Amino acid sequence: MSRQLKATPLTAEQFAPFGQVIDRSQHSHFLINSGTTERYHRMAQVDTGPDDGQAIISIFRKPKADQFPLSIAMLERHPHGSQAFIPLRGKPFLIVVAPAGDRPDPQQMRLFISNGQQGVNYAPGVWHHPLIVTCDEDELLVVDRAGQLANCDEYAFDADQIHWIDWP
Amino acid sequence: MSRQLKATPLTAEQFAPFGQVIDRSQHSHFLINSGTTERYHRMAQVDTGPDDGQAIISIFRKPKADQFPLSIAMLERHPHGSQAFIPLRGKPFLIVVAPAGDRPDPQQMRLFISNGQQGVNYAPGVWHHPLIVTCDEDELLVVDRAGQLANCDEYAFDADQIHWIDWP
Repeated sequence: MSRQLKATPLTAEQFAPFGQVIDRSQHSHFLINSGTTERYHRMAQVDTGPDDGQAIISIFRKPKADQFPLSIAMLERHPHGSQAFIPLRGKPFLIVVAPAGDRPDPQQMRLFISNGQQGVNYAPGVWHHPLIVTCDEDELLVVDRAGQLANCDEYAFDADQIHWIDWP
Repeated sequence: MSRQLKATPLTAEQFAPFGQVIDRSQHSHFLINSGTTERYHRMAQVDTGPDDGQAIISIFRKPKADQFPLSIAMLERHPHGSQAFIPLRGKPFLIVVAPAGDRPDPQQMRLFISNGQQGVNYAPGVWHHPLIVTCDEDELLVVDRAGQLANCDEYAFDADQIHWIDWP
């Protein structure tokens, strides 16, 4: 019998074990361009890991919203680079993570919910669920690593490790 | 007497001398996450240049829209890294560029207009105007270079080199 994973507030502090929150409302700024523009500087830094790693910019788009309640039956990780998701449609999306390690620990798995203005940057090796969106045709900007190294591991939970999440 | 700079269509081909266009409508995709998600892959790559260059993610916000017609009296460049701008509010923004070189050539200056879905990534050294927005409180995601090297040069045009732009 699976258990529900309850949401943790998406703050820089709560998310720190997993990476960075990209949220200007939590961040100070300084002025540039003759004082006309606020720069919310360096809310995340891109880790491109070893060898030929390079930061690239992509868009992920899901034609269909996820259906809730949703079972979390697997997680994935990118061992050699960070991966940032920033919402382009202002819509909430859901973030399921577990600390970096050989395999994800379901006891330490956490659910965070972006309000649609907040992005996240997963640190290298952090276990996370593939993108979960709350509306059809949602789009997120993605900044991650390109390179020759294999950079995606997947882990399928045993039946008794599966949790479920709900939204809203 | 200054001259008006007329817009060039913002396509990958037209913008190629200056960098990359981040526009999924111009880009193919492949499916990931068990076929649920379209990945518009590597629409831009981040160039972080020499030494300790690192890609970082920031937000630029302008409380006030620019006023048009607008004089283009100066351009700037980042010699050691690319700089990407992706709109977060879906609003058009204006892009003024000139080819990389010791100083910007006003004869080769170009105006591009993003439809609000399109982002751009300036190649290192490409001369460009600071952010120009068409609505109050506009926000754009910025991916650029952090590092110790000085990475911003400005060039002020002589009076007879100044152009103006208009919008809409």
